[in-house]
Amino acid sequence: MEDIAKVERFTVSEFQSRVSRAQQAMREHQLDGLLVSSMDNIRYFTGIDSTFWESYARPWFVLVRAEGDPIAIVPEIGRSIMETLWVKEIRSWPSPRRDDDGTSLVIQAVSELPRRFGRVGAELGMELRVGMPVSQVLDIMKGLQGVELVDGSKAIWQLRMIKSEAEVARIRTAIDIAGGVYDTVPDFVRIGDTEKRIQREFRARLNSSGASSIPVVICRSDIGGPFEITGGPRDRKIADGDLLFIDTGTTFDGYYCDYDRNYQVGDATDALLQAHEKVWQANEIGLKSVRAGVSAASVFQAMAKVLSSGEEDLNSNGRMGHGLGLRVTEPPSVKVEDQTVLQAGMVLCIEPGLEYEPGKIVLHEETVLVTEGGMELLTKRASRQLPRIY
Amino acid sequence: MEDIAKVERFTVSEFQSRVSRAQQAMREHQLDGLLVSSMDNIRYFTGIDSTFWESYARPWFVLVRAEGDPIAIVPEIGRSIMETLWVKEIRSWPSPRRDDDGTSLVIQAVSELPRRFGRVGAELGMELRVGMPVSQVLDIMKGLQGVELVDGSKAIWQLRMIKSEAEVARIRTAIDIAGGVYDTVPDFVRIGDTEKRIQREFRARLNSSGASSIPVVICRSDIGGPFEITGGPRDRKIADGDLLFIDTGTTFDGYYCDYDRNYQVGDATDALLQAHEKVWQANEIGLKSVRAGVSAASVFQAMAKVLSSGEEDLNSNGRMGHGLGLRVTEPPSVKVEDQTVLQAGMVLCIEPGLEYEPGKIVLHEETVLVTEGGMELLTKRASRQLPRIY
Repeated sequence: MEDIAKVERFTVSEFQSRVSRAQQAMREHQLDGLLVSSMDNIRYFTGIDSTFWESYARPWFVLVRAEGDPIAIVPEIGRSIMETLWVKEIRSWPSPRRDDDGTSLVIQAVSELPRRFGRVGAELGMELRVGMPVSQVLDIMKGLQGVELVDGSKAIWQLRMIKSEAEVARIRTAIDIAGGVYDTVPDFVRIGDTEKRIQREFRARLNSSGASSIPVVICRSDIGGPFEITGGPRDRKIADGDLLFIDTGTTFDGYYCDYDRNYQVGDATDALLQAHEKVWQANEIGLKSVRAGVSAASVFQAMAKVLSSGEEDLNSNGRMGHGLGLRVTEPPSVKVEDQTVLQAGMVLCIEPGLEYEPGKIVLHEETVLVTEGGMELLTKRASRQLPRIY
Repeated sequence: MEDIAKVERFTVSEFQSRVSRAQQAMREHQLDGLLVSSMDNIRYFTGIDSTFWESYARPWFVLVRAEGDPIAIVPEIGRSIMETLWVKEIRSWPSPRRDDDGTSLVIQAVSELPRRFGRVGAELGMELRVGMPVSQVLDIMKGLQGVELVDGSKAIWQLRMIKSEAEVARIRTAIDIAGGVYDTVPDFVRIGDTEKRIQREFRARLNSSGASSIPVVICRSDIGGPFEITGGPRDRKIADGDLLFIDTGTTFDGYYCDYDRNYQVGDATDALLQAHEKVWQANEIGLKSVRAGVSAASVFQAMAKVLSSGEEDLNSNGRMGHGLGLRVTEPPSVKVEDQTVLQAGMVLCIEPGLEYEPGKIVLHEETVLVTEGGMELLTKRASRQLPRIY
């Protein structure tokens, strides 16, 4: 078993370009620096590939400065791997250290920044998490003099929402890996298989197809459609009349795919087939409505029109799509309230759904790259007719 | 392929017992409630099995009250799964909602708590993360009147550090799954295999052996020992003279194992074999030093004596062990500064390590259940002689 899926490593100029764009965003948002501590943002700026963040014992930090290269402030155990990357200035301490787990090093580095605005952005806001306890964020805030730690989420997402070609290549690969496995589902799944067995075999195939990691494989079935789509797989055996729903967030070199597929198990009712057709059509309209210059909200509205005469119950899951990248969901949200203007280079999951009867959900999801004139479909479009399991 | 590894589902009385212990801890720490939002703490109190938290789009909350059952405050998309669990009071809102993503519901629920101390604990401190943006924590703090949101980490870890029999059963199963795969490494790994290939095959075997998820498989090799142990697998081919290091955090029904194994690739130098013997002996001493009533620090010191005449350079990774449970690392830390007194029911990873030459690490890790008179070894003890790969 060898890795078939391969991409060229990110070049140093890729990271330099990200930093340069970050510096542009800092000027716009009046920031002297960006302090990041989450796995995804540290990876974004340094290229580190690590699962060490699964442990909450030690915080890691990167300070992206308004001028010059970023500084890595990492536990001593992380110094060696950081030295293999492009960031040159690395400061470290023997972590975990309860009373000062990098706090004073971070305060010092932030204090050394040339002061133009007296503000440094941190991962305080929308769809971001910090890689340290909240009490440490508060300690850093208190320890800074003449510099304020403010919400840097707008600057961060302004950057990360627009993907480089090299980033899109990774998302494409993750999608292709999952797509190949989705195609084989009718071959390896039989009536009577449990959700757990199906999930395990699906995961085995993702693994052997070259997935870097497999954080999410949702596998839910019920008569006419799953009643919910957030939980783990059960011992339930799929049966005639079910709709089998599989959704995966699989990564390749750090970047996610996120899309689902539906399978008709044995015979389906007319109500299910009609709901499926409606959602498939809504997806079609949603895909066609994407292009640079329109709002995320307008994509939602285009799909909502297909799904409903009014807009009743369409927003109970809050949205019908989202961004995709180093996280399985990223801004923007495809929803009425999100006026984000789509730009070329954004990658979006377009995800209309319908609870066509109480407890029976049909959900479709495709992924697109936004282009100037429209979009490029990254997923292999789901067939209009439900694939069938016997 | 069927699931061989099985355990009985957690009973409702298991969760009631956790809540009852939480309420005892709240009295000790003068808290009127515990507000949790992280995946692991929500799972601890409700039993939810979900990977939905991989998305940062929607926060989930559980408020554990000083009296009565907990209240779940969850996005509408999460209501259906929450209704299948034991928690009866469920409040929800259409998330994601940018201006009030559950904040007012949380403030309301906290405000309804009978006030005895005027303090509610949240996941603000040691080895905890919140499942919402920091700005939302600050909004909740500001919105509360007459109740203060304080660091609840001591109360939370006081609870979670002591595992029930049902929790230990899950850790045991995760360990047995990984242990079975470790035993087969000399069978399926050959000189010339890449780290990536070895990691992928290791993961395939964990998956087919019944792992619920496989968040961490570290696979690093270098001549005489890996120079670092935090990064992802490389295209490097293992070669004669290497030490191959594999470390996995694999879960079963939410609970982790976390332990490593080392393999001699071809011939080893005397220096490596001596270092290995020293670390193996340190582990032996560490295991023997564990029992209820001694401090975590004393276990560290027992191992440090074997590894070094002084205590030079032993603490560069900060510690030689840690707790284990719903996270891959949990308190306490096996380190000089951690005076936590070990209690029966704690599960500890005992992990002495040595950088015997610059850039050559030997690390051993075993897992024990602390008992009144000593400990029960949960891992199958690593052989004193390095297993060999040809």
